[in-house]
Amino acid sequence: MSAIEDLVGELSRLPGIGRKTATRLTYYLLKQPPDAVHRLARALDGVVDRVVPCSVCGNLTEADPCPVCGDLRRDRSVICVVEEASDIGAIERSGGYRGLYHVLGGHLSPLDGIGPDELRIEALRGRLAGGAEVQEVILATNPSMEGEVTATYVRGIVEEAGVRVTRIALGLPVGGDLEYADSVTVARALAARREMRDA
Amino acid sequence: MSAIEDLVGELSRLPGIGRKTATRLTYYLLKQPPDAVHRLARALDGVVDRVVPCSVCGNLTEADPCPVCGDLRRDRSVICVVEEASDIGAIERSGGYRGLYHVLGGHLSPLDGIGPDELRIEALRGRLAGGAEVQEVILATNPSMEGEVTATYVRGIVEEAGVRVTRIALGLPVGGDLEYADSVTVARALAARREMRDA
Repeated sequence: MSAIEDLVGELSRLPGIGRKTATRLTYYLLKQPPDAVHRLARALDGVVDRVVPCSVCGNLTEADPCPVCGDLRRDRSVICVVEEASDIGAIERSGGYRGLYHVLGGHLSPLDGIGPDELRIEALRGRLAGGAEVQEVILATNPSMEGEVTATYVRGIVEEAGVRVTRIALGLPVGGDLEYADSVTVARALAARREMRDA
Repeated sequence: MSAIEDLVGELSRLPGIGRKTATRLTYYLLKQPPDAVHRLARALDGVVDRVVPCSVCGNLTEADPCPVCGDLRRDRSVICVVEEASDIGAIERSGGYRGLYHVLGGHLSPLDGIGPDELRIEALRGRLAGGAEVQEVILATNPSMEGEVTATYVRGIVEEAGVRVTRIALGLPVGGDLEYADSVTVARALAARREMRDA
């Protein structure tokens, strides 16, 4: 197989990239300085060679434990449970959280053969059993059917350990428009209404 | 910079890939077997290390001259002029052409500083001067404003060499719908109408 066909084939394996886009990207890359293409290749090698899951929380990191687990200024009494390491970025960018994380590595999905043993749930149980340090677990799995099922399952594990468990709030997105919000979100937002207080 | 940020940065340089898609691709790649990611990296190295422009026609190839120029069964009396090496694939797949090619490497675009000297026009002149072998040059630059201007310019070069010059037909695409065709295409298709003959 030729080098061009080879690259088109590899690129079209990526999600959202079909054969046409892969061909377009390949010819685009052929017009770039060789250094730029080698730099992309090195960056690809870099992530698989240097990035490992944090042995504590499952976050993807180049240092083990990861920068969050290793940061002594973080609040060790709270653990926020997320489905994927990529979710951590969204929470960190919000600036609203100073605790630790726990990455499940997905959500429960019996039809795909993903049960509790396929997720990092035993590791979470271990962290909770490790002492009286953890006082709250926030479940921040996705607001999808699978995310809810997973949150319900993990809730049982956390309660067994005698630790307070909370769920990240579901409701109208800030800047969203009530008129265009889907009805499930509106129903959840109404059910989760809170007293207004003077700030 | 971390390996993850590095890859996100490199991927988001690609056309049509923004920061969000680059992040999604990076986390997707982190979930793949390391071998699959290294294979993509090797394919990237491969195109820049192994692919060169054909010294005759400018086609991108791993062998110089390219498989088309080197194929003795191809008709050496016709040269089809295209803007980019990637256009050759479209013509080859049509199965309707058995001649040679000449890649210009773009189109005339004075505003972007691309004049005749930036394209492989001297090389075309050289091929036409090389003997009486070439009897027809087909101009298959894109049916865009720049492609038309480029075709007109190259036409002068070919006529100077005393060689017959033709332009690939513009008209309604096969399987297209007259109702939805743009008016410029319809005008061109009407102007280029032909006598119907019994097959």
